[in-house]
Amino acid sequence: MGRVELAAAIFCSSRCKEQEKTLPRKSIITLITDFGTNDHFVGTMKGVIYNINPSVEIVDITHQVAAYDIFDAAFMLAQSYRFFPPDTIHLVVVDPGVGTSRRPLLARSLAYKFVAPDNGVLSLIYEREENVEVRHITADHYFLNPVSSTFQGRDIFAPIVGWLSKGVEVDKFGEPISDFIKFSSPKPKRVGDNLIKGVVLKVDKFGNILTNLRPEDLAQLFTENPPPFKIIINQHEITRLNLAYSMGKPGELFAIVGSSGYLEICTNRGSAAKLLNVNRGVDVGVTLAGQKSGTESQESE
Amino acid sequence: MGRVELAAAIFCSSRCKEQEKTLPRKSIITLITDFGTNDHFVGTMKGVIYNINPSVEIVDITHQVAAYDIFDAAFMLAQSYRFFPPDTIHLVVVDPGVGTSRRPLLARSLAYKFVAPDNGVLSLIYEREENVEVRHITADHYFLNPVSSTFQGRDIFAPIVGWLSKGVEVDKFGEPISDFIKFSSPKPKRVGDNLIKGVVLKVDKFGNILTNLRPEDLAQLFTENPPPFKIIINQHEITRLNLAYSMGKPGELFAIVGSSGYLEICTNRGSAAKLLNVNRGVDVGVTLAGQKSGTESQESE
Amino acid sequence: MGRVELAAAIFCSSRCKEQEKTLPRKSIITLITDFGTNDHFVGTMKGVIYNINPSVEIVDITHQVAAYDIFDAAFMLAQSYRFFPPDTIHLVVVDPGVGTSRRPLLARSLAYKFVAPDNGVLSLIYEREENVEVRHITADHYFLNPVSSTFQGRDIFAPIVGWLSKGVEVDKFGEPISDFIKFSSPKPKRVGDNLIKGVVLKVDKFGNILTNLRPEDLAQLFTENPPPFKIIINQHEITRLNLAYSMGKPGELFAIVGSSGYLEICTNRGSAAKLLNVNRGVDVGVTLAGQKSGTESQESE
Repeated sequence: MGRVELAAAIFCSSRCKEQEKTLPRKSIITLITDFGTNDHFVGTMKGVIYNINPSVEIVDITHQVAAYDIFDAAFMLAQSYRFFPPDTIHLVVVDPGVGTSRRPLLARSLAYKFVAPDNGVLSLIYEREENVEVRHITADHYFLNPVSSTFQGRDIFAPIVGWLSKGVEVDKFGEPISDFIKFSSPKPKRVGDNLIKGVVLKVDKFGNILTNLRPEDLAQLFTENPPPFKIIINQHEITRLNLAYSMGKPGELFAIVGSSGYLEICTNRGSAAKLLNVNRGVDVGVTLAGQKSGTESQESE
Repeated sequence: MGRVELAAAIFCSSRCKEQEKTLPRKSIITLITDFGTNDHFVGTMKGVIYNINPSVEIVDITHQVAAYDIFDAAFMLAQSYRFFPPDTIHLVVVDPGVGTSRRPLLARSLAYKFVAPDNGVLSLIYEREENVEVRHITADHYFLNPVSSTFQGRDIFAPIVGWLSKGVEVDKFGEPISDFIKFSSPKPKRVGDNLIKGVVLKVDKFGNILTNLRPEDLAQLFTENPPPFKIIINQHEITRLNLAYSMGKPGELFAIVGSSGYLEICTNRGSAAKLLNVNRGVDVGVTLAGQKSGTESQESE
Repeated sequence: MGRVELAAAIFCSSRCKEQEKTLPRKSIITLITDFGTNDHFVGTMKGVIYNINPSVEIVDITHQVAAYDIFDAAFMLAQSYRFFPPDTIHLVVVDPGVGTSRRPLLARSLAYKFVAPDNGVLSLIYEREENVEVRHITADHYFLNPVSSTFQGRDIFAPIVGWLSKGVEVDKFGEPISDFIKFSSPKPKRVGDNLIKGVVLKVDKFGNILTNLRPEDLAQLFTENPPPFKIIINQHEITRLNLAYSMGKPGELFAIVGSSGYLEICTNRGSAAKLLNVNRGVDVGVTLAGQKSGTESQESE
């Protein structure tokens, strides 16, 4: 290889390496909606996004959020968002206030961007991510024209995430605000010395019952010699804590620490929710025996 | 940078820019079927497509078209196709005549290509797009071999859109025809002076009832001083026209102009279709008071 | 173009061509699970995969495998896997033993890779592909940390296919084993001279009943002058063999050789499974008249 070819080779090589590095870094947009998959809604939103940025990757998290159920959507997002690569844009369209003056929001944490209506659906993100900056999206030249009053997923939210994924800077979409809607996720409560009260957050596809109780709320159960305990839900008592779904006997109800970090009530290869007739919002109580002499209960005296 | 490097840089740079421009322009194929998602059917079709063109992007519009329901598929396509980028290939496989001699079609408008069985499922495209050229696909060397009589989505349609997305010219697939099947979408009718009769086209996931009535069919309702009106559907009367779903009181039924441009019957956070026990095909009547003195009714006298 | 530019051009050109050739060859990962689409599970697994390999293509085959149903998953995989491009990685997560010591497997045939729990879900692959090498995945540094006992789709299987798709060699994941779990698919049995007994493998979305009987099991039916025959299923008799679904009269039950190569019981535009009240596992008998004098029955005498 002569001098010229060598120079070209070196230059091209570094140039191409650079390209190799940058090319596969396509943007990812995730979608959470209550639109279902029986209609054209989700497909149409994807069309709008690809029309703006044909090289983006769109990933469905779920479109089966319970209709208009803001908490369910918030919970889905909280369970999934952090498993995606940095710079992923998460779009949530569960929007009972569509067509009113509720604001479209763009939130940014260190690693992720979130786009959603201002109805509290990002509340668990505000809890879990640090230094979240929230903007009111006002730059309507990015919207489809005209904007319908019934399908803003298509007309407002899809184009916003399309342009975001193309690299438009967040400050181009609107000003930071601080008065956005935020709800607190339900926290377990200690009642007296030996009762912890929680609530069912979700029933999953397998009928597992996810509560809002975390191991740290029930620290004694996770010690080497856990005290006897009862989990009381819909007048049933559960007294077993297993490590895996498959460790339960047929028909037996037991607790487990699920993949989301919450205590779940389960049964092996069956639906605990059906056995117990339980849905989201149902109370869960945990009583721990011998609490009086425990360290933690002394502290709370 | 010396002369040689500069020359290489300039050349490479323009060369790479070119590549940057062309690389992200991957083809998009959309899918509308009645295959559902419980079986392997859709996944298998995607396998066939990727086997031919690994760099294509495949977008599901819906696979939940009512089984064998050609109009429902046509309507889904009509609602979504134009939101996709130019050159998108739209594949519709709702095919009650699979295995008979019904022809596979390739239709081309200025911006899009459509592939579907010749059963009328492209009828709304023929209505909405200008200068649609329709070809009978006969080039069976593009098909899988053998072709089954029961799954031509896999054996005929998937390979066709795969090769189309690779850039095979449309005239390679077959000759233009003009005797393809085409139905007319149901049009509203004016009956006497003050009654307009329409029909329900679709009930969406939220239970909103989409009619075939468009604002231009009911122009008086959209003037500054609309006359009193009644929408009559399944022996119920609706007398309210709202701008957004969320403007309705709980349990109240009202009309709205939906995102598809059609009049919809809705209720806030509930299913109007359940409240009214209404499905596709049900009649809808609109009576306008004081029509006798209106301009339009004079014209029709 | 001067000498320098020419050299650069030639070099760059070949360089870019190379890149063009390699760039579109993105890896494909397919997913079969019983996770459904109502939860975040599938989306979260995709997040984990994209986090490792942002340029991979992920294709859903189905997430609606009957819960914990290993055979159903095995059947879905068997119907679809070979339609994908060579080098596709097929991931199956139907895993009633999650959290126990059941092993995660990586199997490789000439054209494909398969990742699944060691519960028999790859059995039909072992039957259909030659020279399948099966490894026990032990390289836990590829897993997420910590690994939950309830969602190993996210914590073990998703990262494994992510790294596989990045080009990590199979021998990096674990050693070959031969004691993996394998079941035999149910085979038709000839009972006496003129009865062949089979079983229902699957009811598809349209209500078509897929049996395990293949044309070669009933060769006489596919001759030029087939003998009279009866298919007996749930006390009904079917005596007609059609070439296409649409050839049946309304309400009539008939048999067809389906796209999977198996005999199916169908009805035109309706659910044979509902008409016959049939599910997976139900017996199917086929009696052939005049068998005594036939070649095959002589052979079996």
